[in-house]
Amino acid sequence: MNIKKKTTIKDIANVLNISAAAVSKALHNDSRISDKTKKAVRQVAENLNYQPNHLASALRSGKSKLVGVIVPRTNSNFFSSVIQNIEEVLNKEGYNIIITQSNESFKKECNSIDTLLFTQVDGIIASMANETVDLSYYEKVKSKGIPLILFDRGENDLNVDYIGIDDYNSSQIIVEHLVAQGCKRIAHIGGYKRTRIFNNRIRGYIDALKKHNLPLDSELLTESGLTIEDGRTKMKQLLALKNRPDAVYVAGDYAALGALQVLNEENITIPNEIALVGFGNEPFTDMVSPRISSINQHSAEIGKQAANTFLNHVKKDVVNQKLNKIILDATLVIRDSSSIK
Amino acid sequence: MNIKKKTTIKDIANVLNISAAAVSKALHNDSRISDKTKKAVRQVAENLNYQPNHLASALRSGKSKLVGVIVPRTNSNFFSSVIQNIEEVLNKEGYNIIITQSNESFKKECNSIDTLLFTQVDGIIASMANETVDLSYYEKVKSKGIPLILFDRGENDLNVDYIGIDDYNSSQIIVEHLVAQGCKRIAHIGGYKRTRIFNNRIRGYIDALKKHNLPLDSELLTESGLTIEDGRTKMKQLLALKNRPDAVYVAGDYAALGALQVLNEENITIPNEIALVGFGNEPFTDMVSPRISSINQHSAEIGKQAANTFLNHVKKDVVNQKLNKIILDATLVIRDSSSIK
Repeated sequence: MNIKKKTTIKDIANVLNISAAAVSKALHNDSRISDKTKKAVRQVAENLNYQPNHLASALRSGKSKLVGVIVPRTNSNFFSSVIQNIEEVLNKEGYNIIITQSNESFKKECNSIDTLLFTQVDGIIASMANETVDLSYYEKVKSKGIPLILFDRGENDLNVDYIGIDDYNSSQIIVEHLVAQGCKRIAHIGGYKRTRIFNNRIRGYIDALKKHNLPLDSELLTESGLTIEDGRTKMKQLLALKNRPDAVYVAGDYAALGALQVLNEENITIPNEIALVGFGNEPFTDMVSPRISSINQHSAEIGKQAANTFLNHVKKDVVNQKLNKIILDATLVIRDSSSIK
Repeated sequence: MNIKKKTTIKDIANVLNISAAAVSKALHNDSRISDKTKKAVRQVAENLNYQPNHLASALRSGKSKLVGVIVPRTNSNFFSSVIQNIEEVLNKEGYNIIITQSNESFKKECNSIDTLLFTQVDGIIASMANETVDLSYYEKVKSKGIPLILFDRGENDLNVDYIGIDDYNSSQIIVEHLVAQGCKRIAHIGGYKRTRIFNNRIRGYIDALKKHNLPLDSELLTESGLTIEDGRTKMKQLLALKNRPDAVYVAGDYAALGALQVLNEENITIPNEIALVGFGNEPFTDMVSPRISSINQHSAEIGKQAANTFLNHVKKDVVNQKLNKIILDATLVIRDSSSIK
């Protein structure tokens, strides 16, 4: 591969024996330049394979028409569906998106923010990493006046736009459903309490148990990173209890899959011995045997609302604009894993 | 949200009553500036919330320490695993990556390339969209002297580095396996022939049939975009044939899943009535019932090699450097869907 020297405006000017300023004006279709000169400039620019420096132009205008999206990971149907919908809405308005992933790491999330600021994005739409507690990097985005919209995993303290589902109420819906199936000892394989959405799910679970006069047993409530492996480990721990649960509500589908694997390996009848409910409605919940009941998080709607919130920021006067906090109602998709006949 | 005016080097200079050039030198740790002045500059920079303009510095140095990755879609385990491995290798060397997706659209792929060039990436690692035939956008990357590495879906005509698996041989392995199971009428739900990898799989399939003296029946060979829906449609077409196949080799796991759904719905015994093999070893192939045999494309290895190929470009003198063409051997993971007892 040969590195060719980049053609500059000066090179074009030299060929035509005019000033660099005139070439620049011609390329920007300035009315002070004759059509004849413009045509000549464009012809030479093409011959010399001139590539206008969009970066320099972004520096001048302060607008890149790029929006950065930060997700914990891309290999989750929820996040990729949100991305898809953000992209569809923004593409129509002439924006392109660039994606970075944090892999649930705080350090990588900070890197992602720096990278996006470096590329001069006009806005950032993000869902926070599991690890993130320190909000200073997000504060940096805010302090630069760049629209910041959080979805799914947000943080009240940041005081920015947020789109998500009602996690607290989702837990209530799940417990309600399991109680209706006759379950009396409901366990919760939860996420880390420090992450707001998982904290809300845990609170919803606890309050729903109280509401139905079910005892809250601390050995039935666990926290983890909700990977497949976490689901396996936590399910094994629950099975090792003297007094096993008759239902398990898992705060993420990947961990629910791990739990299902263990139940199948141990030949435990689902849902009659132990009922199972997941969270996220990942496509595989409908493929496995038995199929897993799960909460639909309305990823398409979240993506669209996030994109539209960004567009409102750039269209309107952003000073003193009210925050957009959208909490969508989740729905429970009931499948074999929790339908006791 | 309030947009604050950005602090410039001039603002710092004004506070300290020194020149902007001196501030710039101090911030770049220039030895011509005293430690006392450096300390004062840093203090004022911090007080005024000064953010160095990385973009301007990238313009000067021509190095952004960013690598762009273009994939057809992120919600595929193969692509997200490749991305993961590219990222791990490059992060260690101080590079960050930004991801764009083409959604299999040529127009979106062109947009992605423009976006990445705009953000001044130091290199591009890409897997081409299904639709792409016109290579001019990739030629543009080459002509700018930016390292371009293709993986999985590449194109010989582009003459760039490439990392992928041996698609031709993968088909041979699959047909060989199915013949060993006693299958005699093997269908192929293939991808579009215009995409090199799918063309190679089709060629491998045809040659393997010949090798085993099996008749090549044109009604058993189809092309599609290999979505779940495509798999469903093509499987239904195969079932409608007077002379049905006894095995189906699908060139992608998502389409294989669609085919499996139809076979299950029609109560066709897998693998005894019809054996099924997919391609890609997506995690769900191991979750469905029956579990689907599939080709492992070694995504981790592909990601690592792609990243290392890029690093070699930036480390070495790139003029007249030899191209890196890496073709990995794929392996067939044999599961229930093709194990005839």
